[in-house]
Amino acid sequence: MAQYLSALDEVFAALADPTRRTVVSALGHGPASVGELARSASMTLPSFMKHVHTLERCGLIRTAKSGRVRTCTLDRTRLAVVDGWLAEQQAVWEGRTDRLESFVTNPQEPS
Amino acid sequence: MAQYLSALDEVFAALADPTRRTVVSALGHGPASVGELARSASMTLPSFMKHVHTLERCGLIRTAKSGRVRTCTLDRTRLAVVDGWLAEQQAVWEGRTDRLESFVTNPQEPS
Repeated sequence: MAQYLSALDEVFAALADPTRRTVVSALGHGPASVGELARSASMTLPSFMKHVHTLERCGLIRTAKSGRVRTCTLDRTRLAVVDGWLAEQQAVWEGRTDRLESFVTNPQEPS
Repeated sequence: MAQYLSALDEVFAALADPTRRTVVSALGHGPASVGELARSASMTLPSFMKHVHTLERCGLIRTAKSGRVRTCTLDRTRLAVVDGWLAEQQAVWEGRTDRLESFVTNPQEPS
């Protein structure tokens, strides 16, 4: 549970940056090299590497080096923690709406 | 578009904190006073108010004061920007999977 909470903290924080969201979106099309991604972001490699490390640390991407090229791959399962959290909230609202509807339909029932 | 990007930055950053996520979850059950929420979080009011301001600034909650009581209400539409962003990513992956499936089924077709 503590691990899940910490994953949520890290994943939400990582996605609070537009460059990192753009990397996640780009990798949705398939793996790409750090060099290609940095060029697309119009950033120098050292500045861009900070974003790569943040994304790697929270598990949103994996990287592997082959020769001089480091390739980044998206790990979609990490994005699923955000989806899961949103689904939990939705379940609360729907439960609440259901109870409200039930009350409106059967106002005599104890709530 | 710039407004949408900035909303995403702020909403993701606000949700990167477990106390603020707990407030969002609690308000999913219905409005609550700042005092009740602070007690649930076992925090002093001044510390807790920082979280309230962060949530209010990014539009995830609205607050209204009546007498000495400030009541917080969740604005679900703000959470929808996160849901929308996730749906965009999913659409990219599904498009990619569809193209891959189409290639596997009709390998002669230009991709």
